[in-house]
Amino acid sequence: MKHAYERLPDAGAALRLHLNENTAGCSPRVLEAMRALTRTDASLYPDYAEAEAACARALGLDAGEVALLNGLDEGIHAVSFAHLQRAEDGRQREAVIVLPAFDMYAACAEIAAARIVEVPPRADLAFPADAVVRAITPGTRVVFLCSPNNPTGLAIPRADLLRVLAALPPGAVALLDEAYVDFARASCLDLLAAHPNLVIGRTFAKAHGLAAVRAGCLAAQAGTLARIRPFLPPYSVNVFARTAMVAALADPGYLEWYRAEVAESKQLLYALCERLGLHYWPSEANFVLVRVGDRAPALVREMAARGVAIRDRSTQPGCAGCIRFTTGVVAHTRRGLALMEDLLCDAR
Amino acid sequence: MKHAYERLPDAGAALRLHLNENTAGCSPRVLEAMRALTRTDASLYPDYAEAEAACARALGLDAGEVALLNGLDEGIHAVSFAHLQRAEDGRQREAVIVLPAFDMYAACAEIAAARIVEVPPRADLAFPADAVVRAITPGTRVVFLCSPNNPTGLAIPRADLLRVLAALPPGAVALLDEAYVDFARASCLDLLAAHPNLVIGRTFAKAHGLAAVRAGCLAAQAGTLARIRPFLPPYSVNVFARTAMVAALADPGYLEWYRAEVAESKQLLYALCERLGLHYWPSEANFVLVRVGDRAPALVREMAARGVAIRDRSTQPGCAGCIRFTTGVVAHTRRGLALMEDLLCDAR
Repeated sequence: MKHAYERLPDAGAALRLHLNENTAGCSPRVLEAMRALTRTDASLYPDYAEAEAACARALGLDAGEVALLNGLDEGIHAVSFAHLQRAEDGRQREAVIVLPAFDMYAACAEIAAARIVEVPPRADLAFPADAVVRAITPGTRVVFLCSPNNPTGLAIPRADLLRVLAALPPGAVALLDEAYVDFARASCLDLLAAHPNLVIGRTFAKAHGLAAVRAGCLAAQAGTLARIRPFLPPYSVNVFARTAMVAALADPGYLEWYRAEVAESKQLLYALCERLGLHYWPSEANFVLVRVGDRAPALVREMAARGVAIRDRSTQPGCAGCIRFTTGVVAHTRRGLALMEDLLCDAR
Repeated sequence: MKHAYERLPDAGAALRLHLNENTAGCSPRVLEAMRALTRTDASLYPDYAEAEAACARALGLDAGEVALLNGLDEGIHAVSFAHLQRAEDGRQREAVIVLPAFDMYAACAEIAAARIVEVPPRADLAFPADAVVRAITPGTRVVFLCSPNNPTGLAIPRADLLRVLAALPPGAVALLDEAYVDFARASCLDLLAAHPNLVIGRTFAKAHGLAAVRAGCLAAQAGTLARIRPFLPPYSVNVFARTAMVAALADPGYLEWYRAEVAESKQLLYALCERLGLHYWPSEANFVLVRVGDRAPALVREMAARGVAIRDRSTQPGCAGCIRFTTGVVAHTRRGLALMEDLLCDAR
């Protein structure tokens, strides 16, 4: 496979600022709810009605407009197989991927045997709406979009999303990955009502701190989801995830706390970048892409050697010289920034 | 979709003897290990090295010969998509399914766009080896096998499995679902070394009582698994499952206890069947298929109305008049059998 998504090596005891995780952990109330599960809760196939209703309510949708997921990765898989497998005559379907992108889109499109159409980045990494629209053909079946984008942190302007939806041929969908939308100014959920060709992916991994529990959902019109549901195994969501979803949605205070930490952390990082004259992209996510130049790989290595993991993104399209820094818990951000400042200043 | 796998409606407060679950729950030690997980264990993407090593060791294999799963369902999906998607010229691959079978095989073959070749049951429900071998063609890519079989409880004779493996064309695999092998006389794991076209699926759902935690694995030669791994998302196994696998494998006493309960429960059921003159199939699983005749649907309904769920299998191929009864925890079996005896005798 050309586009495999690789697990990173274990970061050991390092401070993990490389995977956009909530390094404070999940809400204490969510942990408590999961710990209240019993031996038979573990052994009996779970019922999902309450969690489906809670997710739908939180998104302002009906239960039939939501499909629970074993993490949003499962939704990317399911949409890919539902829409991208070869036509009956063997023709490949086309998947449009806007670079730089989360590796999983290309990995899933490839295993579904699709032809991958990559849209190269603009120099400023803003959403290349014209180029995306031009890349859409009658053979397009999925356009993978991510807003706020990983790794840039930039949101897709609403007008650009509408242009993409209008350009899709019959049978195609845009999968809008909103994994980081809890940190953004706005979601595009309200567009679902008028757009049967829009599928939105959400996750509890990032803002809710449940990456290891595997909890997400797809949101779309009921008819759009009906095409995707057969590709989701009936019991793929584990009972801890089911319970955590309900508990997390009932604890908005924790989310607010973490959002405030993220906002403050980003300001700290922006201030450092301005002091050091580093280019960065103002982010609507819980991470920031920073251009540190040719020293990016060395910086990432040196930080890891001193106990802080950040992500080298310098080989991503349009990201030459860039690292991605998770700006979550303020105390962790301060520690990471102090080390980064030391290393960058020492190197001068 | 013709072959969708449907979740059953929630059984409410009924005693659940319809899904082959361990109704005692998981081992107390496994629950304790899961409850020891912390807020950051929930929020950070998990590392699987220890669980992979523990599974491999338990199966007598190398770590490269095992792939952890979000439940065995995920393995059935992955094998289906890895082997059954259309050829480049649009030709359908063929999936051989031996009836009666777990619904998931046909559901997965169908969503991977395969042509489903069903092998009808023998009157005695013994493995129809001749017919399976005859059903294999140069277009076959997966033969789905289950031993002990669900819903019959019958194991596939080793010689028959070897005949199937020998009959497979290049590029095809047999997926041997050993979900219930913990209750059987023998596994076929030892055949992996000599057979690169064999993939064995295992689960912690049944004997270990972890159905709701979603934990399983595929076992095969490393080269065989390499073809399947890209179809498994990198973080599909949740941290509770990862932790539970290790704890369950370290607690063989619990497994032994449940196995002894299953053995005693089956004897109780067999004795009842003999008293009432009901045909049953001696089972190597934790359930028994019983032929109760035309009253099967009514019996299942009446038992449900009195608080015991069993499974109507009378519409399954070869299973006319049959119900499937989970024979796990002895006290639960006794309760279910007492009710069944009352209802069957009342009806005379």
